[in-house]
Amino acid sequence: NINMLTLKICFVCFLSTAQKWMYGGLDSNVILQYLAWVTYPVVLISFSAGFTHIVAPQAAGSGIPEMKTILRGVVLKEYLTLKTFVAKVVGLTCALGSGLPLGKEGPFVHIASLCAALLCKFMSFFGGIYENESRNTEMLAAACAVGVGCCFAAPIGGVLFSIEVTSTFFAVRNYWRGFFAATFSAFIFRVLAVWNRDEETITALFKTRFRLDFPFDLQELPAFAVIGIASGFGGALFVYLNRLIVQFMRKQKTINKFLMKKRLLYPALVTLLISTLSFPPGFGQFMAGQLTQKETLVSFFDNRTWTKQGMTEDFNYDSHSAAWKHPQANVFVILVIFIVMKFWMSALATTLPVPCGAFMPVFVIGAAFGRLVGESMAAWFPEGINTDGIIYPIVPGGYAVVGAAALSGAVTHTVSTAVIVFELTGQISHILPIMIAVILANAVAQSLQPSIYDSIIRIKKLPYLPELGWGHHEKYNIRVEDIMVRDVRYITLNSTYRDLHEILLIGNLKTVALVESAESMILLGSIERAQLQALLTQHLSRERRLEFIRDRADAERKRVSVVSTPSSEEGGQKVNHEVRFQISTEESSFTPARPISPKPLKPALKRTSTAEKNIEIPTSPHDSGIGLKNLLCARPQTDAMEIEEWEEQQLDEQVNFNSWKIDPAPFQLVERTSLHKTHTIFSLLGLDHAYVTSIGRLIGVVSLRELRKAIEGSMTVKGVKVRPPLASFRDSGTSGTSSESEATELHKLWDRHTSISIPREHQPNTSDSDEKSQ
Amino acid sequence: NINMLTLKICFVCFLSTAQKWMYGGLDSNVILQYLAWVTYPVVLISFSAGFTHIVAPQAAGSGIPEMKTILRGVVLKEYLTLKTFVAKVVGLTCALGSGLPLGKEGPFVHIASLCAALLCKFMSFFGGIYENESRNTEMLAAACAVGVGCCFAAPIGGVLFSIEVTSTFFAVRNYWRGFFAATFSAFIFRVLAVWNRDEETITALFKTRFRLDFPFDLQELPAFAVIGIASGFGGALFVYLNRLIVQFMRKQKTINKFLMKKRLLYPALVTLLISTLSFPPGFGQFMAGQLTQKETLVSFFDNRTWTKQGMTEDFNYDSHSAAWKHPQANVFVILVIFIVMKFWMSALATTLPVPCGAFMPVFVIGAAFGRLVGESMAAWFPEGINTDGIIYPIVPGGYAVVGAAALSGAVTHTVSTAVIVFELTGQISHILPIMIAVILANAVAQSLQPSIYDSIIRIKKLPYLPELGWGHHEKYNIRVEDIMVRDVRYITLNSTYRDLHEILLIGNLKTVALVESAESMILLGSIERAQLQALLTQHLSRERRLEFIRDRADAERKRVSVVSTPSSEEGGQKVNHEVRFQISTEESSFTPARPISPKPLKPALKRTSTAEKNIEIPTSPHDSGIGLKNLLCARPQTDAMEIEEWEEQQLDEQVNFNSWKIDPAPFQLVERTSLHKTHTIFSLLGLDHAYVTSIGRLIGVVSLRELRKAIEGSMTVKGVKVRPPLASFRDSGTSGTSSESEATELHKLWDRHTSISIPREHQPNTSDSDEKSQ
Repeated sequence: NINMLTLKICFVCFLSTAQKWMYGGLDSNVILQYLAWVTYPVVLISFSAGFTHIVAPQAAGSGIPEMKTILRGVVLKEYLTLKTFVAKVVGLTCALGSGLPLGKEGPFVHIASLCAALLCKFMSFFGGIYENESRNTEMLAAACAVGVGCCFAAPIGGVLFSIEVTSTFFAVRNYWRGFFAATFSAFIFRVLAVWNRDEETITALFKTRFRLDFPFDLQELPAFAVIGIASGFGGALFVYLNRLIVQFMRKQKTINKFLMKKRLLYPALVTLLISTLSFPPGFGQFMAGQLTQKETLVSFFDNRTWTKQGMTEDFNYDSHSAAWKHPQANVFVILVIFIVMKFWMSALATTLPVPCGAFMPVFVIGAAFGRLVGESMAAWFPEGINTDGIIYPIVPGGYAVVGAAALSGAVTHTVSTAVIVFELTGQISHILPIMIAVILANAVAQSLQPSIYDSIIRIKKLPYLPELGWGHHEKYNIRVEDIMVRDVRYITLNSTYRDLHEILLIGNLKTVALVESAESMILLGSIERAQLQALLTQHLSRERRLEFIRDRADAERKRVSVVSTPSSEEGGQKVNHEVRFQISTEESSFTPARPISPKPLKPALKRTSTAEKNIEIPTSPHDSGIGLKNLLCARPQTDAMEIEEWEEQQLDEQVNFNSWKIDPAPFQLVERTSLHKTHTIFSLLGLDHAYVTSIGRLIGVVSLRELRKAIEGSMTVKGVKVRPPLASFRDSGTSGTSSESEATELHKLWDRHTSISIPREHQPNTSDSDEKSQ
Repeated sequence: NINMLTLKICFVCFLSTAQKWMYGGLDSNVILQYLAWVTYPVVLISFSAGFTHIVAPQAAGSGIPEMKTILRGVVLKEYLTLKTFVAKVVGLTCALGSGLPLGKEGPFVHIASLCAALLCKFMSFFGGIYENESRNTEMLAAACAVGVGCCFAAPIGGVLFSIEVTSTFFAVRNYWRGFFAATFSAFIFRVLAVWNRDEETITALFKTRFRLDFPFDLQELPAFAVIGIASGFGGALFVYLNRLIVQFMRKQKTINKFLMKKRLLYPALVTLLISTLSFPPGFGQFMAGQLTQKETLVSFFDNRTWTKQGMTEDFNYDSHSAAWKHPQANVFVILVIFIVMKFWMSALATTLPVPCGAFMPVFVIGAAFGRLVGESMAAWFPEGINTDGIIYPIVPGGYAVVGAAALSGAVTHTVSTAVIVFELTGQISHILPIMIAVILANAVAQSLQPSIYDSIIRIKKLPYLPELGWGHHEKYNIRVEDIMVRDVRYITLNSTYRDLHEILLIGNLKTVALVESAESMILLGSIERAQLQALLTQHLSRERRLEFIRDRADAERKRVSVVSTPSSEEGGQKVNHEVRFQISTEESSFTPARPISPKPLKPALKRTSTAEKNIEIPTSPHDSGIGLKNLLCARPQTDAMEIEEWEEQQLDEQVNFNSWKIDPAPFQLVERTSLHKTHTIFSLLGLDHAYVTSIGRLIGVVSLRELRKAIEGSMTVKGVKVRPPLASFRDSGTSGTSSESEATELHKLWDRHTSISIPREHQPNTSDSDEKSQ
């Protein structure tokens, strides 16, 4: 059901033909031609950047890094809103239409996920919220598959690509759903082409017509392997270049300041540069500047050889391939220029703040590189390599396919580009060369650079958990106790509402631990912030205050005129209330006398004019007091002092836990859990945080942040927190086997056992609180 | 590196040509022909069954169910031995050569895994054992991919199929390795064909030559969907039939008794029946009995139509397709007979106790069904469906491909059969029909029956965790406390060796919990049984006994003759031996006087004649005393009484924990963890068991067994253990929302908090021990 919505995005690419039409209509004057050629993309990109910036800045970029983070379990709500959806669709349409080397697979993934998320929200009006929430992630995972699948009409490759790109651990049952959704979307995407009479029946998007009998010679395999290895280096270089550009733009403060002022200037300048260079009568004639990405690909995948006989004849009826023919330069020079120019152009263009992906440009560059190798091979062996029997000439188009799969695989660190290529070309005959090249490219690229998406995650500083590297054995020696935060926010069973309020003001974790008491620290469960807020709001709500005032009025009336008989049989509860607050105006004897904290509730009493409805429960730390603010704004204009007093009293009441919804089994780790195991558990279960308990007592909490710091920190040893004395001690002590360290642990355990005969005394707690007071 | 070894299996299928040769050479006499035709498979299958039964009965069957269980985390050591490997390879060779409708993909998976496991074992001689153990599962996962990949020369489909078939949750980083291994194996598998001059270059195994321009009409899609749905029903029926046959054979006691006596009779009878029916001059002429599976497939995937014009001419030069032409019956009848006969034959043949798989037979039946539909369509629309323009006739071979993918997908509950089919045929032009058919077939089959592998898992009662069904909401209401075993085996920090020994005699879990003391029950970690055994063996070892005796001899000597100087520098040990037995007849004064338990160590002192070397540490409960036995057997023939006494003393010593290797952070659940969450955690982390703790105290343990019982039991409510009073109470109490039940939980918590002011008293423990004494 989620794939229907993504279909409307398939209509977005009309705009690039408009540019050609304008360009073609003005062939009398070169300057006018140039202006038309350049103005069009600059306007489109500027509009796209501006629109995205105004409506939803989150829509800029690929979207796959964000989806990876979201599927990891981190909530990035602003990335899945209707606003983002609109910004992404409009921005992507304009960006693609501009003719810059930008891709659409990342934005498509994001758009499909947005559809899924919005659909989920929409469906939750009908079904139970609970049910849908648990399905949300599964829907998103399927949506990612749909995004890629409908972008390339490649259902299988789409599912695999989305799995590789977004997941660390994958549930096989989601896989089935992904296939279902992706097949459906690819089907409809291609059926539209048939219905539009563009094609006779459903075929591949970039259909190739390579020889089936003898697709390639076995002796060509080394050439394919070379493509793979070179693509691996190229892919790593691309990721590096892309990151370098972003970091350069950030560091250069003078440029940066200037660009910050005129937000649209940077995109416009980049677009101007790129489109000037690709202006067909200018430098563009050496790099086939007049072709769109799709036309370029079609010409690369062509199964005729360009270097050999019959060049002009063949090119006459195929306008796309004619672009590669130049009177002065031969094909090799043009291909090299194309590759070099497109390489930095793509790396630069993908840094623009518009919705765009890097897959398609890289794919094209890879195809160009493959074509280059293929043409060289064809020039080298004009009669083919096979010596005995029939002559099978070399097919450079096959090399182009291999190169495209290898380079895009290297940049994204995926193997499934091979499958995408099969589905894209409709031919699987080159399966072995493609697989070999893709695997080699991956092996090289993965050892040099992170994938483009991981690189963006690092640049954007998204809360993602990095992979544990290979062979970093020191990481196995870090334990949870070394990285956990010992100063945990918690509430106890006899907390007052004031404690709640203070916790809400300070903490920033999404859940708060519930312990039995501050002395025992036995972890009973965890409560969501939202719950706490709702509870507090309800306790200080207008209704309760009005009731209180009414009650007091009644009591006042009663006290003044004792004669009147209390005939309140209806509203027995009110009588109770009356009595309570009659007393509470005097010295409080009802609630246990607690030392009222001298600190006034400053943020709660600050009157703000935010009258907007807060239907969504706020989660960021900044608006933690908003529940209070709201109710204070909404109250009738009575005596502020009196109400403040009432609130103070209310805050000192003990929390009534009966209506709470707590998680009775939050995830617990033991202090000796290794970093490796913690990482696995966090990745597997998609945890945001876990409590660390020692024999039932809460002693710390580990969140993604600490874990990330520990993983990154252990490579570049810095800071005491990451590697405390204990860890280094273990390092020095256990240069030998791991059993030794276990024995050391046991020693400690043994010592403890003998020294502390009664394990349940409160001594360890005092040391805990000491640490807390640091 | 693991794929090299699997290649030698690719040479196994010479035998079926021998049968043909024998059959062809005897065409003068029908009776002799029949005898030759029948004897050959009967002998081969009997040999295969006998060999498998004698060498390693574990080698029988597919092997995929076992691999699924092993990858799930359950140790089935006997399935990964060299014996099994030999039995599987030899048995499979014979079984495939017999010509029965048997497949090889399951055995190939098993063989590849065996290779990986053996390689792991071999490599562990060089590297550290620890490192290899953690990699074992990853190696196995990659090996499964290799198995399928090298069976079909389908690297991508192999990886996906193995993931779908063996995993519940999949780590994406293993996926890459699987691709690598599978590509390499498929490459070498196909390169061998080139080197053998069978083929000119690397192409697909069952290469098809369908039209590329117009592979199928859009209006043919309903026919493909019909194939998918029918295949779904057919697949479910196949699984059901297969299970029915097995269960029938088990239930029929008279048959069973007879068959148990003559183990080879059942396979021989079945083979006789099947080969008689497929005897070409007999009934076999109506079902193309002379074709092997491969030839059948080639003829099905042929892109010419059988029903139309030019039938005889075409068939002349293609001997395979000629088998489908019969003077009396037309093609449809023959195809229907073929499908029906092969259907029950395959279901029957896969129950034989030989190494065999069900994939290939099902694949062939599916292709036949697809061909049937395709031929019908071709007869119905002889001019093709497309009305405007060029006539594109219908390609029945495409239908055969769709049918093959759909039926095999339905039987195995996988979608990746589609990919396998692409790689097998070398054409991807039918991608959308195949995907649609496979998805429909899966949807139908999954709602009717488990997959063939899950069915075998159930039949074989392998310790596998079933999937949680969809929409069984009552399962979410079961908590861990309802299903856990409260009577946990544990040792404490001050356990004696006697306690260890008793635990080893009784328990059957692979690990034993270590708690602080029996009163506090605070969980400190878990210890492997093997560790305990080693510890106990070491403590009662011969060396220690000798040392003890030497020490005492020294003391004795000092006491008896203080004057004589001990001049025994050479052969000190012998002297010690002498002295030892002189003294040890007296009363022991060396060891501290402890109360010796009256119970003698019966199993320890039973002398057995098992002189075989126990290098492997035994893990099954039966041989838990073997460590003791061994050392007792090895001792010199001295006074048994004396040694028994010494052992009694040793057993009463407190365990020294320093050399132990414990797991300091065993997986813990809380008693209120829901069954759903428990299931997810068990599946994700591949757990075998988890301890249940309540505020740090060990209160129970949940193993796979309990979990499985709970999941299966909650559907067919039976037994008190599965749904104890508490659970039913919750059921009745919380018919409304889930927040209510949470509130109820909190009530209890609250009550406890108010009633028990000091949480760490020992009262709960007494109730625990009460339960234990039940």
